[in-house]
Amino acid sequence: MLNVLTLEEALDLSKKEFSLILRTEHVSLSKALGRILAEDIISKEYVPDFNRSTVDGYALRARDVFGCSDSIPAILAVQAQIRMGESTGFSLLEGCCAAIPTGGAVPAGADSIVMLEYAEDYGDGTIGVAKPVAPGENIIFRGDDVFPGKQVLPKGQIIRSQDVGALSAMGFTEIPVYCVPRVGIISTGDELVAPDQVPAPGQIRDVNSLLLAAQISTYGAVPISYGIVPDEEEQLKSAVGMALSECDAVILSGGSSVGVKDASCRVIESFGTVLFHGLAIKPGKPTILGRCESKPVIGLPGHPVAAFFVTELFIRPLMTALGGKPTKPRCVSARLSENISANHGRALYCACRLTQKEDHLIAEPIRTKSGLITALSAADGYFCVSRDCEGLMKGTEIQVYCFTEDQNGI
Amino acid sequence: MLNVLTLEEALDLSKKEFSLILRTEHVSLSKALGRILAEDIISKEYVPDFNRSTVDGYALRARDVFGCSDSIPAILAVQAQIRMGESTGFSLLEGCCAAIPTGGAVPAGADSIVMLEYAEDYGDGTIGVAKPVAPGENIIFRGDDVFPGKQVLPKGQIIRSQDVGALSAMGFTEIPVYCVPRVGIISTGDELVAPDQVPAPGQIRDVNSLLLAAQISTYGAVPISYGIVPDEEEQLKSAVGMALSECDAVILSGGSSVGVKDASCRVIESFGTVLFHGLAIKPGKPTILGRCESKPVIGLPGHPVAAFFVTELFIRPLMTALGGKPTKPRCVSARLSENISANHGRALYCACRLTQKEDHLIAEPIRTKSGLITALSAADGYFCVSRDCEGLMKGTEIQVYCFTEDQNGI
Repeated sequence: MLNVLTLEEALDLSKKEFSLILRTEHVSLSKALGRILAEDIISKEYVPDFNRSTVDGYALRARDVFGCSDSIPAILAVQAQIRMGESTGFSLLEGCCAAIPTGGAVPAGADSIVMLEYAEDYGDGTIGVAKPVAPGENIIFRGDDVFPGKQVLPKGQIIRSQDVGALSAMGFTEIPVYCVPRVGIISTGDELVAPDQVPAPGQIRDVNSLLLAAQISTYGAVPISYGIVPDEEEQLKSAVGMALSECDAVILSGGSSVGVKDASCRVIESFGTVLFHGLAIKPGKPTILGRCESKPVIGLPGHPVAAFFVTELFIRPLMTALGGKPTKPRCVSARLSENISANHGRALYCACRLTQKEDHLIAEPIRTKSGLITALSAADGYFCVSRDCEGLMKGTEIQVYCFTEDQNGI
Repeated sequence: MLNVLTLEEALDLSKKEFSLILRTEHVSLSKALGRILAEDIISKEYVPDFNRSTVDGYALRARDVFGCSDSIPAILAVQAQIRMGESTGFSLLEGCCAAIPTGGAVPAGADSIVMLEYAEDYGDGTIGVAKPVAPGENIIFRGDDVFPGKQVLPKGQIIRSQDVGALSAMGFTEIPVYCVPRVGIISTGDELVAPDQVPAPGQIRDVNSLLLAAQISTYGAVPISYGIVPDEEEQLKSAVGMALSECDAVILSGGSSVGVKDASCRVIESFGTVLFHGLAIKPGKPTILGRCESKPVIGLPGHPVAAFFVTELFIRPLMTALGGKPTKPRCVSARLSENISANHGRALYCACRLTQKEDHLIAEPIRTKSGLITALSAADGYFCVSRDCEGLMKGTEIQVYCFTEDQNGI
């Protein structure tokens, strides 16, 4: 018999036990997308480091063209042609201008740029300007984008494409980020064979190794597989010991119940402390959380659907605490397509299909026998019937947690 | 001068020109997460391939325990102990049962499993069963999950964690998927230096190479950088030629306008056809789409913010057409925090911050000078003011496209 915790109690306990000081590392900017910043990013430079033109035109003093018009253009001598990427080693003289491309460096003395469209080249080394400009017009000034001491990105930010761009601009090419948690995955069961093998009578293929690895990847962590281990305590201890020495967390799938052959609990106890054994959710009751060498070791039920839900509900937030991405499923409102009865005392998690009907979504529960993984492949998401609720009536408005973020337009 | 297309016209044209027959490849199941299935997946097997118990208990004939109760248990002889992963080479005799673990193979002759809790082991080779079971109870039958010919996953499905699980169960370890599009990225500009260099006066760091590579990755495509090329036609031709020979699409960033130094259009014409030059959006007007050797070549403005928006708005859907992920940004409603004026004739795209205020979101436009990439780092998303609209009043309800899918809970 198990003394079960609710999911909320289990999450609180896990949060308290595993609030670690996260390890950090530096990665190349080209590998930084999706990683989490471990420090505030403060600019050390001016960007741009010189005054730049935002248009093709002529750099000049605004006061030299005040009052000009189509009928009375201001005449200026062209003192220089500024080229892209070159410094301006001169000062603009009074009454003069310099041809400048978009992005070119504005010479000393110039305070504005008149666009090409408003200037006429007379071909004799002078131009006529037909429209006045305000001082500062069409110039990005030194440091307009960033300047030394300006915080551009905060610690904890997940690095997005535009952040990669901003870091490029400031010359940050090695980025301080949190280390990605490494999670060891061990599948146990005498009946399991690898997915590329043909099961003999009585055997089935191991689903959880690749299933859990895929889930762990989705949460921004790195799965490391330790293969299939028979339900044998010494072999399991050896696998867990190796995984503990190489990983930040270990998942042991199968053997988490209380039968004679269920060794997970004893194996976890041999390395540390069992924090709880049993979750008040369905599927997923025989779940174990242990702390071994200050690392979390999770015993999951062998049934793939149960393992999937416990990973989604319990291990996903744990991954965030260990330095993975702060992910959470997208939630939509939908109406239940049929009555559903629940298991009093345990929160029920049920996979469902979503279909659009007029102005609302319909959630159709997928009813399966225990352990049928393909049912989850037919699902768009899942909903929960709380432990104090005996069921929900057809038409009830429920919250559905979606399996995909954005692909289906639902 | 450019003859501009609206974004919608440009997207339609792009869709028509580049509806390709996608290439496919096989990947190992452990690498299949997030890839797109190129064929329907039809099971060739029964899963499970034998009748399995879903509980720890005794396999028996239901009719042998009909009518039993706590006071009058049915007495059965224990004929065998079934072990996990082993076949049952016997038939159950009448009046007999076999001990069976969860997941064990149900022997011939048995039609149901009674749970351990409802049986008492008398220690003399017999048990007493205190509760009747219905035929079929606590058994997953052969093929309950899948059977030969059943379609489990449809062509076009993005492979999720649970799909990896289902494919494991059926023994599919090499998965047919669409090839990921390879996108060459060339940054051009005499003023550009690599991000790890210190710009000399008049120079700036190349932002677009890494910015565009990050965006392209986000869309499920593979970016390949061809570095920084000076604004020189022959050198650009050589870079584009190499990229065309190695990639499915090429992006040329910078030099897309109509100035003397703007070589992109001429370079694209030298390899094929310019389909349009100019988009009625701000920022991003000087955008080019070409078709060279039946591949798309896109000329982007060099300004990072303009390049970012054109990539988000125009290249993202193109990547989907070429076999990338069908992604689209999440959209939320928000109220504008201030009046905003727009550029009549071009659709205005404006980055904004989102903040929750009571029961609604506030969108605060981020006003910047042209090209300031760090402004996008401060943004949560963007909104559009349509080309026929001269502006929006403070408080207007607008649709904001979010830069992140789910992290911030907004």
